[in-house]
Amino acid sequence: MGNFKGHALPGSFFLLFGLWWSVKYPLKYVCRKNKSACYLGSRAGFQRLEFVEGIIKAVFALIGMVAEQFVPDGPHLKLYNYEEKHWDHLMNWQHATMYLFYGISGLVDIVAHGTNALPVAMDRMMLSLAVFIEGFLFCYHLHGRAMLDIHVHQLLLYAIFGGAICIFLEVFFRGSIVLEMLRTSLCILQGSWFWQIGFVLYPPNGSPEWNQMDHTNMMFLTMCYCWHYAFAFLILAVNYTIVSCSVKD
Amino acid sequence: MGNFKGHALPGSFFLLFGLWWSVKYPLKYVCRKNKSACYLGSRAGFQRLEFVEGIIKAVFALIGMVAEQFVPDGPHLKLYNYEEKHWDHLMNWQHATMYLFYGISGLVDIVAHGTNALPVAMDRMMLSLAVFIEGFLFCYHLHGRAMLDIHVHQLLLYAIFGGAICIFLEVFFRGSIVLEMLRTSLCILQGSWFWQIGFVLYPPNGSPEWNQMDHTNMMFLTMCYCWHYAFAFLILAVNYTIVSCSVKD
Amino acid sequence: MGNFKGHALPGSFFLLFGLWWSVKYPLKYVCRKNKSACYLGSRAGFQRLEFVEGIIKAVFALIGMVAEQFVPDGPHLKLYNYEEKHWDHLMNWQHATMYLFYGISGLVDIVAHGTNALPVAMDRMMLSLAVFIEGFLFCYHLHGRAMLDIHVHQLLLYAIFGGAICIFLEVFFRGSIVLEMLRTSLCILQGSWFWQIGFVLYPPNGSPEWNQMDHTNMMFLTMCYCWHYAFAFLILAVNYTIVSCSVKD
Amino acid sequence: MGNFKGHALPGSFFLLFGLWWSVKYPLKYVCRKNKSACYLGSRAGFQRLEFVEGIIKAVFALIGMVAEQFVPDGPHLKLYNYEEKHWDHLMNWQHATMYLFYGISGLVDIVAHGTNALPVAMDRMMLSLAVFIEGFLFCYHLHGRAMLDIHVHQLLLYAIFGGAICIFLEVFFRGSIVLEMLRTSLCILQGSWFWQIGFVLYPPNGSPEWNQMDHTNMMFLTMCYCWHYAFAFLILAVNYTIVSCSVKD
Repeated sequence: MGNFKGHALPGSFFLLFGLWWSVKYPLKYVCRKNKSACYLGSRAGFQRLEFVEGIIKAVFALIGMVAEQFVPDGPHLKLYNYEEKHWDHLMNWQHATMYLFYGISGLVDIVAHGTNALPVAMDRMMLSLAVFIEGFLFCYHLHGRAMLDIHVHQLLLYAIFGGAICIFLEVFFRGSIVLEMLRTSLCILQGSWFWQIGFVLYPPNGSPEWNQMDHTNMMFLTMCYCWHYAFAFLILAVNYTIVSCSVKD
Repeated sequence: MGNFKGHALPGSFFLLFGLWWSVKYPLKYVCRKNKSACYLGSRAGFQRLEFVEGIIKAVFALIGMVAEQFVPDGPHLKLYNYEEKHWDHLMNWQHATMYLFYGISGLVDIVAHGTNALPVAMDRMMLSLAVFIEGFLFCYHLHGRAMLDIHVHQLLLYAIFGGAICIFLEVFFRGSIVLEMLRTSLCILQGSWFWQIGFVLYPPNGSPEWNQMDHTNMMFLTMCYCWHYAFAFLILAVNYTIVSCSVKD
Repeated sequence: MGNFKGHALPGSFFLLFGLWWSVKYPLKYVCRKNKSACYLGSRAGFQRLEFVEGIIKAVFALIGMVAEQFVPDGPHLKLYNYEEKHWDHLMNWQHATMYLFYGISGLVDIVAHGTNALPVAMDRMMLSLAVFIEGFLFCYHLHGRAMLDIHVHQLLLYAIFGGAICIFLEVFFRGSIVLEMLRTSLCILQGSWFWQIGFVLYPPNGSPEWNQMDHTNMMFLTMCYCWHYAFAFLILAVNYTIVSCSVKD
Repeated sequence: MGNFKGHALPGSFFLLFGLWWSVKYPLKYVCRKNKSACYLGSRAGFQRLEFVEGIIKAVFALIGMVAEQFVPDGPHLKLYNYEEKHWDHLMNWQHATMYLFYGISGLVDIVAHGTNALPVAMDRMMLSLAVFIEGFLFCYHLHGRAMLDIHVHQLLLYAIFGGAICIFLEVFFRGSIVLEMLRTSLCILQGSWFWQIGFVLYPPNGSPEWNQMDHTNMMFLTMCYCWHYAFAFLILAVNYTIVSCSVKD
């Protein structure tokens, strides 16, 4: 992951999910409010959507895990290098572990919404745990890096843990549009910030490096983070408007 | 903002809103309790008040943003100084970012209370986020200052984050008079503490400077902060008494 | 307060309130469960109790404030020593500030339970704030002390902030016997720990001083703190048993 | 406890309870959902189970306390060594204190589910406190150890405090299957991680020691902790499937 693509890829996934949620939840809310006008979706339809979402999540997680293991400079399922007596490609293993929990979350989605064996609230709890584990592994990921590098990842952690707490609250306040919008905004923020980290730490097409020890860079990035968040709300607002207008007509 | 006026101005805004809320919420509570006696306000009337509040908030935020950009020594929308290769007027940009989120919160108020397109609880969530972002930017604002300077701003952060948490709780316990009073008290505290910071760091009309490294100054200010809070409750109590007496008659 | 009596006195107050609550709340719970058997207390009776409690709290707080000001080596309402240019008796002022908030809490109790002008839940919020302010001032109280001194006060802070959170939860879950018992236990713990601090830091009747830098002392006191808590639950259990037996007969 | 067995023993207890809960709670949930199909358990039956669980917990805790006191190199109820002027076997006393609170929790279970004198929610509060006290004592347990040693115990603390918070939430959301599953998973995690700590710090049958200062070891163990958690969910899933299938038939 220590390159531009390694940050753009997960960023794109989070952006994709965030954008999708920014359409789905307003749609769900509008449909619940005026049932007659809404021929698009029913309660069963949304359940099926969650089911499909679970499959996509599980497939993405599986692809991620396999990719982390079998890229040319990956561990190929080898955990310990017995000849040189050190752990092998720990970074890749950590990323695979992150994907593993998203995979479990996907599986729980599938079972909870495909059958009626599992209580539905389990999907939120597993997603919350998956996001939490992602943040947890990130926390122990940053040892011995430069100041700016640590700072941009710390900012990412706010979005991650904020998201985890928000999803955990959804276990108790299920279907609260406010929490769903908050989660969506944090997911878009996480996605776009992954891209920003890529641009800052591994500037593509020959831009000059950022000065890692300059305090004003840190201050700018903190502010930039807020702009990303404002931008996430702009997207939410636009999608919300489009959805509510198109349903009413 | 690095002068007395720069602290007195935001302080006045917060005091203004705090004082207004200390009238509005008791009025709302008293009106809800004895509906017959209260010819002043109805449910629709209070909704219209929130709508007007949103407009005022948005206008103030806009003025704030424009002022921060176009004051004589402001950035004039220039973010990066390419000649000298450093960020330009980051402080002003940070303050403008704070105002931006209050502006978004105002806009959400307008839409949520002016139309019925948006769930009402969104206004509290956006206000909570705006306050949180204010605190968040303050946190990374204090690097490399003197002890007393950091301390008085840290005390401010308690009021800010306390307010953010309190408003977030209102998403779930909407209309709880206790939370509304708590929020009002924290808002007044924040306003009066901004004034206090101005007096401590930039003593007007030639008072001597405070010793920044004296530990007893720090202890006094901590206590002084509590007195400000007690004073906020005094204002709340007086306004509450006036409101409930005038409604009953 | 820098002596044995200065810790024993507040400790006794907290113990007194804790013991009283350990009788009151079980009684209230038992009376609510079997209304017929209970001729001791009605809903109005308990309201009157809360009213009386508020008066006692306010009176104690007033006495405390006056005592802190007018003890022989107190500040006598003088805050700043202009001749020697330093703050005067800041410790006494801080304690008076703590009492002030307990006094406000008492006043709110009186108004909320004596009249019906104030929402009842305000009493819990003010009590929570009073306890929080106590902890808050303690936090900035410990600068530059010895290791063991800081440690025993930190342990006290757990009881204080635990209590503040517990009481704040009661705003939303009013009348929950579990939270009331938890609060009572934390109040008794705080009281008995104040006594313990007195014995550790100012050993009465000529006992030898505790070694402030010995790590095993710190470990013992941490454990001792847990024993105090177990002891608080023992008291709760005994009082609960006595109350429920005496009501049934 | 400073050996392999000292970690394997508590680990086994937590695993035992975790495994038992991973059968009990799904069973309870399935029985509540389709009451007709379920001849195994009724409401009263589950109450009796909780009662028995309390007895087992109390007995285990008693055995633990006695064992910690009267093992050959234990304190034999002697707290202070007056000849050599130092505390005696503080570690054993601390472990006994931990067991004490689990014992109290067991007693509360017995009274709350055996009689109707105590509100049922008290059992969760006491269990939450027992787990919290365990974590609290662990926190002050780690002074002056090597980096890896501290790290593995810190990881344990996440499971402990996570469990304490989860059980505390159950006071308010009693019978929520999601919280019960979360608690079960954290309990299994704690149990299996105790075993892992034993293997890492006291490798049995002559394996080489782990390098305590190697940062990659720390990273591996963080990841390994997540695998343990995934494994806990695997066990939960298997038991849940078995239970729901066997009840339906």
